[in-house]
Formats: sequence, structure tokens, C-alpha cells
Amino acid sequence: MTRIVAFGGGHGLAASLRALRALQAKMPLELTAVVTVGDDGGSSGRLRADRGIVPPGDIRQALAALADDADPAAGQTAALLQHRFAGSDPLTGHPVGNLMLCGLMELLGDPVQAIDHVAALVKANGRVLPMSYDPVWIEADVAGPDGAVATVRGQHNVAVAKGIVRTLRLNPTAPAPCVEAVAATKNADWLIFGPGSWYTSVIPHLLVPELADAIAHSTARRLITLNLAVEQETSGLSLPDHLAALTRYLPGLRVDVVLADGNAIGAPEPLRRAAESLGAELVLAPVAVRGATTRHDPVALAAALEPILSVRE
Amino acid sequence: MTRIVAFGGGHGLAASLRALRALQAKMPLELTAVVTVGDDGGSSGRLRADRGIVPPGDIRQALAALADDADPAAGQTAALLQHRFAGSDPLTGHPVGNLMLCGLMELLGDPVQAIDHVAALVKANGRVLPMSYDPVWIEADVAGPDGAVATVRGQHNVAVAKGIVRTLRLNPTAPAPCVEAVAATKNADWLIFGPGSWYTSVIPHLLVPELADAIAHSTARRLITLNLAVEQETSGLSLPDHLAALTRYLPGLRVDVVLADGNAIGAPEPLRRAAESLGAELVLAPVAVRGATTRHDPVALAAALEPILSVRE
Repeated sequence: MTRIVAFGGGHGLAASLRALRALQAKMPLELTAVVTVGDDGGSSGRLRADRGIVPPGDIRQALAALADDADPAAGQTAALLQHRFAGSDPLTGHPVGNLMLCGLMELLGDPVQAIDHVAALVKANGRVLPMSYDPVWIEADVAGPDGAVATVRGQHNVAVAKGIVRTLRLNPTAPAPCVEAVAATKNADWLIFGPGSWYTSVIPHLLVPELADAIAHSTARRLITLNLAVEQETSGLSLPDHLAALTRYLPGLRVDVVLADGNAIGAPEPLRRAAESLGAELVLAPVAVRGATTRHDPVALAAALEPILSVRE
Repeated sequence: MTRIVAFGGGHGLAASLRALRALQAKMPLELTAVVTVGDDGGSSGRLRADRGIVPPGDIRQALAALADDADPAAGQTAALLQHRFAGSDPLTGHPVGNLMLCGLMELLGDPVQAIDHVAALVKANGRVLPMSYDPVWIEADVAGPDGAVATVRGQHNVAVAKGIVRTLRLNPTAPAPCVEAVAATKNADWLIFGPGSWYTSVIPHLLVPELADAIAHSTARRLITLNLAVEQETSGLSLPDHLAALTRYLPGLRVDVVLADGNAIGAPEPLRRAAESLGAELVLAPVAVRGATTRHDPVALAAALEPILSVRE
């Protein structure tokens, strides 16, 4: 059994989990997703502000990605999780799964128990954990077009800020980690970072001190799956810069494999050198959805991951 | 296997279902609850008005009553259904189960499939059906304290109207029935009416023409469980009047057993005569919660129902 911990949030993590779940048909993988808890936009932002819970949206997406959709009832429950109320009333914009997670968090007083319960309802092929039991705020010092640096508060604002992120931090600066996530990290065979919004979904994990410590000292191999396109929050950041950003926030991080799509990286040499500086091999594979170069295709990503994860030390 | 169909809505139906579920440990009972769909107050009223669905509240209560609470996961899901959001935000007052039923009804486009899905999640020991696929309005002509008769529209308004209900009707006057409820009624061994709000939870079933026809022509035995206390909507109505109200809306209704609590009925003779006029035996048993004479105790109700339902023709 290969124990894998995937760090991220939102669509990128979901794509990674769908790929890993597809691989479970070929090799025994024990999957744990560790999800950022900084979201403050949309349904998650409203629930977090109104009801004081860990933002549930990225957690819900990870649960839906791990759902056993070969089981009709579990698949229908997963579809319910993802059903977003349309219209223009007080429910509009909330996916049902966010409301179920919110209710369970209130009922049980423990986000991990709440998530585990929904995981059982969808027969999830893996576990989903928050990086912290409490919501965090993501903050960044952003240099604007005129060079002036301003502090931007909140994941949503950081994600859409026009300018270059100079420094990222959490508020509180040292949130208590989810102990189950720390334990899974320590016991993992592989740690996977990305794809995903680099500053708001990937790097926040490195800013939780005990989780960063577990990542730094885990004996697991490390894989970084790079993004296919530049987002607003990473404007000005090349792919080698993405790797450098990881070691800036977790100095000394060693990496085994950097996975990228040859069609998305331009000339490979700068990226290969950046990967090698972390101790990593650069692996190029076509992992984008055909015709939509910004999204990872779970089937193609699974095909790329299979030989990587099959390597025995 | 004894096939039982219980008609009602709200707390009364839930008490009846809890009693019947307790009896399943002693005798094989196939349970079907048929629930009114006239609720227009509270969470159900908001969801019905905003999202056009069958009001889910009474359905949710019936599902929670039938949930397999010996199974920890099913019991926790049932607790989630019943968890009502507190506070003062747009979710306040909604039980999570109402939102799940609403989401499933939107997703599947069929209230019966939606209810069956939640029933599976709580491992319900029986089926819950709406009396109609579409919400209905309950209307009453009510004679006020001054004798003037006014039309009151809406279940909630009828339930709290000060005065005496002269005539009850549905709007639309002849809603299409749930065909699964009609079929269950035709195939039942027992039909059980009450306890519950007489005008707003029990009699509405008799106003759905095809359902009333199935009730009238079913070969099932019929049991009426009378209420323990007068409610606002039945002020001025004696217990014999409760029985007369049933035959007013379903002329020719024959009944086998009328179950009442001897402590709640005063002198039994008028009630016995009213029962006999419907062809029924009056059975007296202590079925109230000790110290709270207005609510049925499921365990006591089960003890009273056991000899009644054990009778073979």
C-alpha cells in the first residue's frame, strides 16, 4: 500500500485526486487530501463569516473527487454535494454539500469528524482533512503596477489582486495544525503539491509551522505538479519561480519529481535546472485537457503519475 | 409481513412511526408513511415559496422517525437531518434535512426519488411518500367568535385561526395523488390515521380524490389514533366530533379500531358510541408521555398497538 498525501485546494486538488483515484484500479494507494482553509469568497466565505466554520468549499470538492461514483447511491450523494442552488434567494450560490458540512461541523463540533461523515456517505476512496481546525486568513504584500506595495487581506482578494505578490503570510501567523494531517504527512510514502493556485492553495500549507515541519522531515518522496497556465495571483511568476517560491517558504525543501506538461513550459532547460536545484527530476507529460490547455485531465494525469508512483526506492 | 400505511404529518405522524418502528422488533411490519404537503410555515414555507418544492419539513420528520438509530452512521445522518441552523443569518431556522431534500428534489426532479435517497442514507425502516407530487394550499372557512365566517388560507393560518372550522378544502381542490401512495394504500393490511393536527395533517389526505378513493375501497383494516389534547384549530371539537369530521370528508368510511387514552377522553360513552357508529371498537390505553399529557409516548403507543395489529381476521 502506497500512502499518498496530496496538498492543495479547489479545482487543482480535485483534478489531482481524480487522477489518483483512477490509479487505485491499478495499484493500491491510500489517499489523504489536505485542504487549505483560507477561502473567504462565495458560499464558503458567507458560511465562514456567518457561522464561524472552516470554509467547506474546497473540502467538498475533494470529497466529491474521491467519491465512489461506481456506486449509484454514493454517486447520487456526491451529485447532491455538488448541487449548487440557483436562483436569487437566500440559498442561492450554496452547494448542498457546503450546508451539510456546515451542519455536521456545528452538530459534532469537530471538522474532521464532520468531513469523515460525509466521506462515508459518498464512500470516498480516501480521507480529506483540513490543514488547520480553524479558518485562517491569507494575506499578501502585493506590489502594484506603480511599484507601491500594499497589504491585501483575504484569499479571494489575493487571488484577484493586480500586481506581484512579494510576501505571503497567514493570519493567525502560526495556526494550530490538524494533527491527523500532520500524522498522515509523517507516515506518507509520497507528498504531492499542486496543481492549484500557487499562493492561495499550495503554499499556505507551508505556512502552518507544525505541518511544514512534518513536510520537511517526512521520509516521503515529494512530487510537485506544476500548473498549466499563469493565474492572476502568479502574474510575473515563471514556472522556475513557482519552484523557488516553495523553497522560499520552506527553506531546504528537497523534491524528487517535478511534473509538467511539455506544451505549457516553453524551453525546458530553465525549469530542468530549477528542478535539479531542489534535487528533483523534471518529468514532462501531456496532462492538459485536450483543447483546454489550462486544466489538468485526470486520465492523462493518472497516466503520467503511474510510472512515477510505481518506482520503488 | 403486515403492510401498514400511516397518514399524517408533523409530530403526530412521527410519534406514530416511532411506535411502529419499535414494534418491528416484535412483528414483521412493512411501513409506509404518507405525508401531507400543505405546510406553508417556517423553513418549509420559505423553501416552498422560494424554490417551488413540496414542503419538506413533515417528510424530514417522518424520515428521522424511521431512521435506523441502532446504526451509528445512520443515526448521525438522522441527527444531521434534524439539525436546525440557529442564529440570525439566511440559514437560520432551516433544518439541514430540509435543504438536502430541496437539493435532491431539484437535482432529480422527482420528490419520491429524492425522499427515497434520504431514506437510504438514514437506513429508514420504511418508506415515506408525499400525498401529492405538488404542494397544496389548505383553506378553511372559519367562524369567528362573533359568528362571522371568513376564509382562511394556508396551513399555518388555519392551524392558528381563532374560531371554529366550518369547511376545509384544498387548493387546487383535486390535486394529483402520489401514485406510489395510492398503490400502498390499496395493498395495505392496515391504514392508520392520526394522531396529529386534525384539519391540517389528518383530513387533508381525504381531500385528494384518488387517495380518498383508495382509502374507501382498500380491504385494509382502519385504525384511528385520537389526539390527547385540543389544539387551536380543533377548538370546539369534541373527540366524537373528530370522528364525525372524518366521515364528513369521506362519507361511508368504515373503521375497525379507535385508540384513545382513557385519561384524555372524559366519560367514554359518547366516544364509544361515535366509534361504534363507524363500525369501530374503542380501545383505551395509556399512551401519553408521563407528565406531559399532550404528547404520545412511542413506547406506550407501541404497547397499545401491539395487540391491535396482532389480530388476524
